[in-house]
Amino acid sequence: MAGVENTVFVGKKATMNYVLAVVTQMNQGSNDVTIKARGKAISRAVDVAEIVKNKFVTEAKIDDIKIATEEISTEEGNLLKVSAIEIILKK
Amino acid sequence: MAGVENTVFVGKKATMNYVLAVVTQMNQGSNDVTIKARGKAISRAVDVAEIVKNKFVTEAKIDDIKIATEEISTEEGNLLKVSAIEIILKK
Repeated sequence: MAGVENTVFVGKKATMNYVLAVVTQMNQGSNDVTIKARGKAISRAVDVAEIVKNKFVTEAKIDDIKIATEEISTEEGNLLKVSAIEIILKK
Repeated sequence: MAGVENTVFVGKKATMNYVLAVVTQMNQGSNDVTIKARGKAISRAVDVAEIVKNKFVTEAKIDDIKIATEEISTEEGNLLKVSAIEIILKK
Protein backbone atom coordinates (compact mmCIF):
# COMPACT_ATOMS: atom_id res chain seq x y z
CA MET A 1 0.00 0.00 0.00
CA ALA A 2 1.39 3.39 -0.95
CA GLY A 3 1.88 6.06 1.69
CA VAL A 4 -0.59 8.93 1.89
CA GLU A 5 1.90 11.22 0.16
CA ASN A 6 1.60 9.08 -2.98
CA THR A 7 -2.18 8.93 -2.92
CA VAL A 8 -4.72 11.06 -4.75
CA PHE A 9 -8.31 10.84 -3.50
CA VAL A 10 -10.76 11.47 -6.32
CA GLY A 11 -14.00 13.19 -5.33
CA LYS A 12 -16.50 15.55 -6.90
CA LYS A 13 -14.21 18.16 -8.44
CA ALA A 14 -13.48 18.34 -12.16
CA THR A 15 -11.44 15.44 -13.51
CA MET A 16 -8.51 17.63 -14.58
CA ASN A 17 -7.90 18.74 -10.96
CA TYR A 18 -7.04 15.15 -10.06
CA VAL A 19 -5.11 14.56 -13.28
CA LEU A 20 -2.94 17.55 -12.38
CA ALA A 21 -2.44 16.22 -8.82
CA VAL A 22 -1.25 12.83 -10.12
CA VAL A 23 1.02 14.34 -12.78
CA THR A 24 2.53 16.71 -10.19
CA GLN A 25 3.32 13.83 -7.83
CA MET A 26 4.93 11.84 -10.64
CA ASN A 27 7.00 14.85 -11.74
CA GLN A 28 8.16 15.37 -8.16
CA GLY A 29 9.80 11.96 -8.10
CA SER A 30 7.04 9.49 -7.14
CA ASN A 31 7.39 6.41 -9.31
CA ASP A 32 4.00 5.16 -8.28
CA VAL A 33 0.82 6.99 -7.36
CA THR A 34 -2.33 5.42 -5.95
CA ILE A 35 -5.63 6.87 -7.16
CA LYS A 36 -8.48 6.17 -4.74
CA ALA A 37 -12.21 6.80 -5.01
CA ARG A 38 -15.52 5.68 -3.53
CA GLY A 39 -19.05 5.46 -4.87
CA LYS A 40 -19.90 7.52 -7.93
CA ALA A 41 -16.40 9.00 -8.06
CA ILE A 42 -15.07 5.58 -9.14
CA SER A 43 -15.79 6.36 -12.81
CA ARG A 44 -13.86 9.62 -12.48
CA ALA A 45 -10.90 7.79 -10.92
CA VAL A 46 -10.74 5.53 -14.00
CA ASP A 47 -10.87 8.63 -16.24
CA VAL A 48 -8.01 10.19 -14.25
CA ALA A 49 -5.81 7.10 -14.60
CA GLU A 50 -6.50 6.80 -18.34
CA ILE A 51 -5.87 10.50 -19.03
CA VAL A 52 -2.60 10.56 -17.05
CA LYS A 53 -1.38 7.40 -18.80
CA ASN A 54 -2.44 8.33 -22.32
CA LYS A 55 -1.72 12.05 -22.40
CA PHE A 56 0.68 13.22 -19.69
CA VAL A 57 2.94 10.44 -18.40
CA THR A 58 3.01 8.03 -21.32
CA GLU A 59 5.65 5.82 -19.70
CA ALA A 60 3.24 5.14 -16.79
CA LYS A 61 1.41 1.83 -16.66
CA ILE A 62 -1.45 0.45 -14.60
CA ASP A 63 0.35 -1.62 -12.00
CA ASP A 64 -2.66 -2.91 -10.06
CA ILE A 65 -6.38 -2.28 -9.59
CA LYS A 66 -8.25 -3.32 -6.45
CA ILE A 67 -11.90 -2.98 -5.61
CA ALA A 68 -13.47 -3.35 -2.18
CA THR A 69 -16.49 -2.55 -0.07
CA GLU A 70 -16.01 0.06 2.64
CA GLU A 71 -18.29 1.05 5.49
CA ILE A 72 -18.79 4.71 6.19
CA SER A 73 -20.83 6.12 9.05
CA THR A 74 -23.40 8.75 8.18
CA GLU A 75 -24.09 11.85 10.26
CA GLU A 76 -27.11 10.02 11.71
CA GLY A 77 -24.81 7.26 12.95
CA ASN A 78 -25.84 4.64 10.41
CA LEU A 79 -23.38 2.41 8.60
CA LEU A 80 -23.46 2.68 4.82
CA LYS A 81 -21.65 0.31 2.47
CA VAL A 82 -19.94 1.83 -0.55
CA SER A 83 -17.73 0.38 -3.24
CA ALA A 84 -14.19 1.66 -3.49
CA ILE A 85 -11.41 1.44 -6.04
CA GLU A 86 -7.64 1.77 -5.85
CA ILE A 87 -5.68 2.18 -9.07
CA ILE A 88 -1.89 2.08 -8.84
CA LEU A 89 -0.06 3.89 -11.64
CA LYS A 90 3.64 3.15 -11.97
CA LYS A 91 6.34 4.53 -14.25
CA MET B 1 -11.18 -12.77 -23.01
CA ALA B 2 -14.50 -14.36 -22.07
CA GLY B 3 -17.07 -15.08 -24.76
CA VAL B 4 -20.11 -12.85 -25.05
CA GLU B 5 -22.21 -15.50 -23.32
CA ASN B 6 -20.18 -14.99 -20.16
CA THR B 7 -20.35 -11.21 -20.27
CA VAL B 8 -22.73 -8.85 -18.50
CA PHE B 9 -22.80 -5.27 -19.81
CA VAL B 10 -23.70 -2.85 -17.03
CA GLY B 11 -25.69 0.21 -18.11
CA LYS B 12 -28.27 2.54 -16.62
CA LYS B 13 -30.71 0.04 -15.07
CA ALA B 14 -30.88 -0.64 -11.34
CA THR B 15 -27.83 -2.41 -9.93
CA MET B 16 -29.78 -5.50 -8.84
CA ASN B 17 -30.75 -6.26 -12.48
CA TYR B 18 -27.09 -6.81 -13.29
CA VAL B 19 -26.39 -8.63 -10.03
CA LEU B 20 -29.15 -11.08 -10.95
CA ALA B 21 -27.74 -11.51 -14.48
CA VAL B 22 -24.27 -12.37 -13.12
CA VAL B 23 -25.62 -14.73 -10.43
CA THR B 24 -27.79 -16.49 -13.04
CA GLN B 25 -24.81 -17.07 -15.34
CA MET B 26 -22.75 -18.45 -12.47
CA ASN B 27 -25.57 -20.74 -11.37
CA GLN B 28 -25.93 -22.01 -14.95
CA GLY B 29 -22.39 -23.34 -14.93
CA SER B 30 -20.17 -20.39 -15.89
CA ASN B 31 -17.08 -20.42 -13.68
CA ASP B 32 -16.14 -16.95 -14.77
CA VAL B 33 -18.23 -13.97 -15.74
CA THR B 34 -16.93 -10.71 -17.19
CA ILE B 35 -18.67 -7.53 -16.05
CA LYS B 36 -18.18 -4.65 -18.49
CA ALA B 37 -19.15 -1.00 -18.31
CA ARG B 38 -18.29 2.37 -19.80
CA GLY B 39 -18.41 5.94 -18.53
CA LYS B 40 -20.58 6.65 -15.52
CA ALA B 41 -21.75 3.02 -15.36
CA ILE B 42 -18.25 2.02 -14.20
CA SER B 43 -19.15 2.73 -10.56
CA ARG B 44 -22.22 0.52 -10.89
CA ALA B 45 -20.11 -2.31 -12.38
CA VAL B 46 -17.90 -2.22 -9.27
CA ASP B 47 -21.03 -2.33 -7.08
CA VAL B 48 -22.29 -5.35 -9.06
CA ALA B 49 -19.02 -7.26 -8.63
CA GLU B 50 -18.87 -6.48 -4.89
CA ILE B 51 -22.51 -7.43 -4.23
CA VAL B 52 -22.24 -10.72 -6.16
CA LYS B 53 -19.02 -11.64 -4.36
CA ASN B 54 -20.09 -10.60 -0.85
CA LYS B 55 -23.74 -11.64 -0.83
CA PHE B 56 -24.64 -14.18 -3.51
CA VAL B 57 -21.66 -16.21 -4.74
CA THR B 58 -19.31 -16.02 -1.77
CA GLU B 59 -16.84 -18.49 -3.32
CA ALA B 60 -16.34 -16.07 -6.25
CA LYS B 61 -13.20 -13.96 -6.37
CA ILE B 62 -12.03 -11.01 -8.45
CA ASP B 63 -9.77 -12.66 -11.00
CA ASP B 64 -8.71 -9.58 -12.95
CA ILE B 65 -9.66 -5.94 -13.49
CA LYS B 66 -8.74 -4.03 -16.64
CA ILE B 67 -9.38 -0.44 -17.55
CA ALA B 68 -9.09 1.11 -21.00
CA THR B 69 -10.13 4.02 -23.17
CA GLU B 70 -12.64 3.26 -25.91
CA GLU B 71 -13.76 5.42 -28.81
CA ILE B 72 -17.44 5.59 -29.58
CA SER B 73 -18.97 7.48 -32.48
CA THR B 74 -21.83 9.83 -31.69
CA GLU B 75 -24.92 10.24 -33.83
CA GLU B 76 -23.34 13.39 -35.28
CA GLY B 77 -20.37 11.32 -36.46
CA ASN B 78 -17.89 12.59 -33.88
CA LEU B 79 -15.50 10.33 -32.00
CA LEU B 80 -15.85 10.43 -28.24
CA LYS B 81 -13.39 8.86 -25.82
CA VAL B 82 -14.81 7.07 -22.81
CA SER B 83 -13.20 5.04 -20.06
CA ALA B 84 -14.17 1.40 -19.78
CA ILE B 85 -13.76 -1.32 -17.17
CA GLU B 86 -13.75 -5.10 -17.31
CA ILE B 87 -14.05 -7.05 -14.06
CA ILE B 88 -13.59 -10.81 -14.24
CA LEU B 89 -15.29 -12.75 -11.44
CA LYS B 90 -14.22 -16.37 -11.02
CA LYS B 91 -15.41 -19.14 -8.72
